[in-house]
Order: sequence, then C-alpha cells, then structure tokens
Amino acid sequence: MSLVVQKFGGTSVGDAERIRAVADHVARTRRRGDDVVVVVSAMGKTTDDLLRLATDVSPVQPPRELDMLLTAGERVSMALFVMALSGQGVDAVSFTGSQAGIITDTAHGRAKIVEVRGDRLRDALAAGRVPVVAGFQGVSTDRDVTTLGRGGSDTTAVALAASLGAEVCEIYTDVSGVFSADPRIVPEARRLARVSFEEMLDIAASGGRVLALRSVEFARNHHVPLHVRSSFTWEPGTWVVEEDPSMEQAVVTAVTHDTSEAKVTVTGVPDEPGIAARLFRALADRHVNVDTIVQNVSVHGTTDISFTVPKDDLGPSLEVARALLPEIGAGEVLADDGIAKVSLVGAGMRTHPGVSATMFETLATHGINIEMISTSTIRLSCVVRADRVEEAVRALHEAFELSA
Amino acid sequence: MSLVVQKFGGTSVGDAERIRAVADHVARTRRRGDDVVVVVSAMGKTTDDLLRLATDVSPVQPPRELDMLLTAGERVSMALFVMALSGQGVDAVSFTGSQAGIITDTAHGRAKIVEVRGDRLRDALAAGRVPVVAGFQGVSTDRDVTTLGRGGSDTTAVALAASLGAEVCEIYTDVSGVFSADPRIVPEARRLARVSFEEMLDIAASGGRVLALRSVEFARNHHVPLHVRSSFTWEPGTWVVEEDPSMEQAVVTAVTHDTSEAKVTVTGVPDEPGIAARLFRALADRHVNVDTIVQNVSVHGTTDISFTVPKDDLGPSLEVARALLPEIGAGEVLADDGIAKVSLVGAGMRTHPGVSATMFETLATHGINIEMISTSTIRLSCVVRADRVEEAVRALHEAFELSA
Repeated sequence: MSLVVQKFGGTSVGDAERIRAVADHVARTRRRGDDVVVVVSAMGKTTDDLLRLATDVSPVQPPRELDMLLTAGERVSMALFVMALSGQGVDAVSFTGSQAGIITDTAHGRAKIVEVRGDRLRDALAAGRVPVVAGFQGVSTDRDVTTLGRGGSDTTAVALAASLGAEVCEIYTDVSGVFSADPRIVPEARRLARVSFEEMLDIAASGGRVLALRSVEFARNHHVPLHVRSSFTWEPGTWVVEEDPSMEQAVVTAVTHDTSEAKVTVTGVPDEPGIAARLFRALADRHVNVDTIVQNVSVHGTTDISFTVPKDDLGPSLEVARALLPEIGAGEVLADDGIAKVSLVGAGMRTHPGVSATMFETLATHGINIEMISTSTIRLSCVVRADRVEEAVRALHEAFELSA
Repeated sequence: MSLVVQKFGGTSVGDAERIRAVADHVARTRRRGDDVVVVVSAMGKTTDDLLRLATDVSPVQPPRELDMLLTAGERVSMALFVMALSGQGVDAVSFTGSQAGIITDTAHGRAKIVEVRGDRLRDALAAGRVPVVAGFQGVSTDRDVTTLGRGGSDTTAVALAASLGAEVCEIYTDVSGVFSADPRIVPEARRLARVSFEEMLDIAASGGRVLALRSVEFARNHHVPLHVRSSFTWEPGTWVVEEDPSMEQAVVTAVTHDTSEAKVTVTGVPDEPGIAARLFRALADRHVNVDTIVQNVSVHGTTDISFTVPKDDLGPSLEVARALLPEIGAGEVLADDGIAKVSLVGAGMRTHPGVSATMFETLATHGINIEMISTSTIRLSCVVRADRVEEAVRALHEAFELSA
C-alpha cells in the first residue's frame, strides 16, 4: 500500500457531473488499496468570475482581501468533493490550506510555502480517511489567508506529496499528457511517455502550458515523481521523473512555442560597462519578468539592446526604459507585440551541437526570419513573427522527426 | 464617539452596485465620527445556489462539509465589501468568523456561540480601521468551521455588539422596520417606532419574519439595543429595546400570521397520566419543534390531542405518532396542512383581559372558524383555515385600530 496525491484542476471539477466522475476515480484508487490525498482547484471559471466581481465593486483591491475572495472557490469545490466521495461510501474530510498546515510567507497573491505541517492530514490518513485539500492557498505567518499565484494548486499538490512522502503526485487535467508539440497545431504530435524534470522545466518555461514552472521546480528539488494525465479519459499520461543517465537521450524531445511575450528594443545605447545593469536592475525593481535578452555588436560606440517581457508587463517596461533614456544617453525605446518564440527542448542537445544549425536551416527554408536567439544547455529558442510561429512549429516538428 | 455594529443581509449586498451603495453608508457613518463594525451575509441567493450544487453532487452531505461549503458565501461578500470601502478611502479589513474569534460548539449547521474573542477586532478598531466580519459562521472548539443556522448573521452581529460594548446593533434589511401587520396584506399597517424585546420575541415566534428569534433572545439577554432598518431608503426604522415600565403600553402592538405549520391530531387517546408525555418525548427525540398543543376534554375516557409542527417536520411527526398508536392504545393519526395561525402581540395584554373576547368576536363576525387557541402572557394565537388567514389579519388589524 502506497500513498498517491491526486490533483484535479478547474475543468476536472467544472460541474456537479464532473465532480462525481472524478470522485469515482478517487474511490477506485482507494479500493485498489492505495492511500489518497486529493488536491482540488476552484470549479471551472470561478476564479475569473470572482475577479470580475471585484473589478465591478472597486478599483482598489487590497491584496489580503483579494486572497480572501479567491480562496472561497477552492473551499466550495473541496466541500462538494467530499460530499461526492461520501455519496460513494468513501470516508473523506476536507481541509483548507490553513487546516492542512500549508504555512506561507506574507506575499499576498504570490505567497511562497515556507513549511508544510501535515499533522491533520496524517491523522486523517491514519484513520483511513481521504483528505481533500484546497489547492492554491495557505495561511501566512501573520495568520492571514494567502494564495500561491499562477499554478498554485499544482504547487500545493507537489508540496503535500513531498511532505507526506507520496510515491507519486498525479496531476489530472484536460489534456492527456505532455506532447512533442501543441496537438492543436501539429495533429501528429506524440504524447511523451516520460520526460526528465530538466526537460519539463524548459518545456514549461518556453510555452508548454500543461504544468506551471514553479511546481516542476518544487518536484525536482524534492524528488517527487509527477504523472500528468487526463481526468476525461483516465489513460496513462506523461511521467516527469529524474533523468536516467544510463538511457540514451532523444536529441530533441519537444517543440514548444509562446505567443505571450512582447519585444522591447532600446536603440543607440552607449557601449559602456554598467549601462545594461542599470536598465535590468530598474526592470527588476518593477517586478518585470525579462526573458530573452539580445545585445547586438557595437557599431560606432553604440549598440541596440532587445529583450522580451510578458505582454502584461509591456507598459511598465516601456515606462522604465523611457525614464532611463536621458540617464544612460540612449536613443529611443521601441515596442513590438507581434512576436512569438519557438523552442526546441531535449536533454540530448547537450551532446549534439548540430541541432542549432538544423533549426536555423529549417526556418530559413520556410522563409521565416529569426529576430532573436537564446540558448540554454537543453533548449534553443528563436523569436520570430507571431503570424509565422505555427508554421515554424510544424516545420521543426517534421525536421526533427518527432511524430509517433 | 461610539461604536455601532451594522449588519447587512443578502439582498443588501446582492450585487456589485448594492455593495458600493452600502459601503457608502458605512463610510458616511465613519465620517460622522462613530466606530463601525460591519457584519455581512452571503450575496443574494448564494447560499441557495450552493445548497443546490450540493444536492446535485451527492445525496450524502456530511454536516462539517456543508458548513465548509456554505461559509464560502460570506467570505466572498466580506472581501468585496472591504474592497468597496477601500475604494472610498476607508481603511477596512475583513475577518472570517474564526479570525473574529467567534468560538462555537461542534453542532454543525446550528452551532451555538460559546465565546467571542474579539482581540483582532479590537486591535483593528484601535488602529482606526473598519472590521468587516463574515456573518453566520464561527470556528468550533474542534477547530472546524461551523455555521450558526437560520438567522445566523443577525446572531453574529448581536454577539459582536455585546462583546465589544456597542451602543447599538443596526440590522439592515429590505424592509423598513417591524410593522403592525404584514404590509403586503394590510396596506395601512403602521411601522412601529419602538417595540420591547419581549414583544419582538413573540412577533418573531408567531410569524414576523424580520428578525430571527434567536438573535432577539441574544440581544435581550445581553441588553443590546437593536435598530431594524432599510438599506434601500436608509430611513429610521424600528428600535427593539428594554421594556420601559413607566410608559403606558399599547394593548395590542401587532397582528402576525404564520402559514408554515401543519396540524397533527391523534384521536381516541386514553385519558391516562403519561400518555401525552410519551408522545411529546418521542417527537422531541426526533428534533420536531412542536408549537401549539391542544387537548380536548375527555369523553368516554378518551380524548383527542392536536398539535402544530413546521410543515417540514410533518413527515417525521406522523411517523412518530403512528408508531406509538399500538403502545398508547389510541385511534388514528390525522394530518392537516391547510391551517394557518393568526396572533395578537402586545405587552399591554398582561393587564387587559378583554383582548381574547374581542379577538374571538372579530373572527366570529367574519365567519372564520377557530380550530385551536394558545396564549402566552403577551400573545394570543388562533389556528384557522389557511385560506381565511389574510382576512383574519385585516379584520383584527382594524378591530384593534392599529393603523397609523
């Protein structure tokens, strides 16, 4: 008998019928003999509805109150989930983030877990009950309710799996796993049976939306195997596990793409030490999450610096950069929100230096212009025009023979 | 500067616009110089919607989980309320029942408050902030979330007013006070400027729906003046206060009616000691809330016992009574859900014995048959046919000259 953490997202518990179907699956897991801890998100679009209500009520939304508001959603779904399990004769009990002992810092809206005190969960498990825990939420060291930010329910599930020593953390969602490319763009994309934490981190960071980056990092750091799978078909999905050095690595595992970023270019930047540092420190102070950075070679003592940021951060980024222009003696600041990023991810890229050449050739063959390039040890990303990115994904998927 | 507790019910915070309007009123109270503690119910029909969702999910609804589910509603409204106050520049902060220190027993769904630890509220007030507290909820001595049952938000408001030493507890609702009769039935009914706790208890117990019985009892026991008023017109409403013995009492203050009960009759009951006791003990064991009881005179050694119960309790009542028939040697059990009760309430009735005669004569003049009669020191109730009750209310309102 082992312990399994099962996390169900918003679409998996979107209505009464879905909750019953998912509870049925938990009941089957339980009857198979495993202990189960369930983590649930808010139902369907609940969180969006609550945010809209807040906007209707007031332009001023104190972060503490916004967290109090949003955490109502998971309370509803977890209580309903326990009722559904009870209706199937499974002894279950719900816990808020606070009751489950998820202690966070005080950064409302993006709190970090500082400790998991799972006493009440352990007691419930010892009594043969299924604990159902509200995802996305915790209680701060100031005794206030906090939320964990984007992908927070996945993080809750992984943190509980780590704390309770679960054998696996199953992340149920509305897709059947992690694919070699987005199946909506590449119909012949293959479901990956197994990826390493490192690959999954780069897939998540470069546009693969199945798992939030933060929960993958947490799983890697705490050695929690993840199993990403569908709550609609229940078929086996994708395992995210430690890299196995004895196995031969695929050179390229997946093609990912991301259309959520915009590009900012500062022209005529004096080619002097410390200028870039001042710019990116100022952006960091505004909490702008800069992704790719490219600096061209210096011509006549000045250079252009381009970087990408989430589209939501474009306004503040432009403000920061423009305010710095006089101080750093640069020319002007240009914004471009018509870009997209296409990436190759694969652990085997560490030992196969020819990948970049094939990537650039493939894009060139299709007449797709590369505007920026960035690399990590197992990822290679190109910024291209947004209206060409789907073609780029299909061409690269075919060039690297990623189909089933 | 004094402290005022202001409680807003579901219709008062039914949508974003209502929340802003009500927050505006709190801001005005604050600017006038008073300290304010706000208590809110769930928005509009939220609680009904959540109950429906629970029914859709499962026939089994553990009481602990039902409480967890329902308390989500007040969390939403209190967080939105603080945002609305913040939008008007009022420094406010929300508290769940647990955070406000409302400690209850463990009777989920109908928990009783055992203690109010208002430390966080007192700290917030001392810091010049407006605490906004979730009504209807507390935390049990087992650390689980509980609800206070019907009228629970009123009880929360009164308990906080008592604990914090508020000058008044203002109960805002969608009617402008307590009336001499239901204005939908008697258009010329008069708003009562002032009633005593005792009268209000009898008005609430006999069908006046403005205040829940339990919150009035709590207010009387803790000497908390109530002011029942409208959150739509903001005009002065009805004060519920200690009886002032120096004032001359109106003989009759109000005519109330109640159509929520049914009548059960057990025929041919042997006229022996202990028979009635056995019947009503069995009903109490099933938590049936028996109201009026009438036993006719004994004829040939047997008698008929009639009693009224809430219509929701009719099924269990019939079961209990029928199961007892062989044991007590009675004839049969009859049910009648076509009844209604009309009542006169007035502190002056203690010293005016002629009221009952006038009541019976008035009903007789209108050809309305009286099926059961019950009395208390300041109330006189008659059970009549349900289809005649509105006529009875109008006739009595006129006979006792209760119009403005």
